[in-house]
Amino acid sequence: MSAPAPWQAPWQATVLTLFPDMFPGPLGLSLAGKALAAETWRLETVDIRAHARDRHRSVDDTPFGGGSGMVMRADVTAAALDAVADRPGPRVYLTPRGRPLDQGLVREWAAGPGLVLLCGRYEGLDQRVIEARDLVEVSLGDFVLSGGEIAALAMLDACVRLLPGVMGAASGADEDSFENGLLEYPLYTQPRTWEGREVPEVLLSGHHAKIDAWRRAAAEAVTRARRPDLWRAYRGDDDQS
Amino acid sequence: MSAPAPWQAPWQATVLTLFPDMFPGPLGLSLAGKALAAETWRLETVDIRAHARDRHRSVDDTPFGGGSGMVMRADVTAAALDAVADRPGPRVYLTPRGRPLDQGLVREWAAGPGLVLLCGRYEGLDQRVIEARDLVEVSLGDFVLSGGEIAALAMLDACVRLLPGVMGAASGADEDSFENGLLEYPLYTQPRTWEGREVPEVLLSGHHAKIDAWRRAAAEAVTRARRPDLWRAYRGDDDQS
Repeated sequence: MSAPAPWQAPWQATVLTLFPDMFPGPLGLSLAGKALAAETWRLETVDIRAHARDRHRSVDDTPFGGGSGMVMRADVTAAALDAVADRPGPRVYLTPRGRPLDQGLVREWAAGPGLVLLCGRYEGLDQRVIEARDLVEVSLGDFVLSGGEIAALAMLDACVRLLPGVMGAASGADEDSFENGLLEYPLYTQPRTWEGREVPEVLLSGHHAKIDAWRRAAAEAVTRARRPDLWRAYRGDDDQS
Repeated sequence: MSAPAPWQAPWQATVLTLFPDMFPGPLGLSLAGKALAAETWRLETVDIRAHARDRHRSVDDTPFGGGSGMVMRADVTAAALDAVADRPGPRVYLTPRGRPLDQGLVREWAAGPGLVLLCGRYEGLDQRVIEARDLVEVSLGDFVLSGGEIAALAMLDACVRLLPGVMGAASGADEDSFENGLLEYPLYTQPRTWEGREVPEVLLSGHHAKIDAWRRAAAEAVTRARRPDLWRAYRGDDDQS
């Protein structure tokens, strides 16, 4: 038995979006879908447009100072956020300007009571609502999506798989890439010979210590070759080799 | 008129997955959905399981050398890849072990004829098929998803919005974060005063040169504060200030 979670299940995801029909989408299937059906987590979508005040249900307007594209209005977005003020978890605004998501942040969020995700659209959100509602800006990575919705799906999938019971006892979460600061070692399964290619001998040896050593060395080699940034962090920041 | 594309439209996305029902998902709506309906791009999903050979339709097996989780078989995955050998674009395997996606790679893919995306599941794919089929390994970021499907949705969304005609003449793609090596400047729209917060004076001045200078300085300031890595690259790699 692991220690009881410091929060009441289910884990609560709240998504503010102009496209509520995009949810649960892929999260309604597979691992996350089963966990949703089992009420390990709960998903609430809030249609930002329902908080517009005028009869056209406007949520955006042109940017002050000119330029192309549209900007999401502070008043409408704040009204949507204020309507879910009692939902648990940090208020996260999904934007390429934010802190890049990493597995450490995912672990932190999954260990908490939930997450409130605000999906940006158009050019982005009026800066004043980011400041006035103290939103945490997080980015999925250094690329631009047409909106925050797919980023929200990714963040929720990453969190949900870490919730207690979701991956089951046979899970490999502890050996995932990043969990120990290294990329994962190479994997092999049946058939033992395929297109003339063999499985490395050591993996067939049954010698657990040797297998562990081989996997550790392989994980280190791939991390060093592909991700000098992760390699430096793994070796310790002072070691620039 | 821009130069004619070096390929025949539509842009062709081919996705190999164990969960074909996850597609088009969110890509069936909004910008990408309209472009799909307009045949600016085409989406083909291939069910990897349809390429299994045994009567249980097995696609995975336990890892040689032991350990938790399951590994996708090389033979089944290769059969699925070989069935779409004539589809255009690079063969990309979505895995946390890959090169992290960035906007440069998105631009390169969007300028080409299409993309073939192989979605990993379970612990991952048998290493031999990665080598035998010369797959390009790409990661959405330094976090772990329950499978490659949501990463595929993100990569396709990022590409599709850059296809000719998708965002329209009024698009803001050139001013997006990363397109000039900087995070985007802050945005403001109506109302001019909200909760006592004003729009910066300069944006109301109508003086375009001053507005451009303010935006550039603001984009530099946010990039420098939040992303020293991007800031160093923007300033030139030799300049470590």
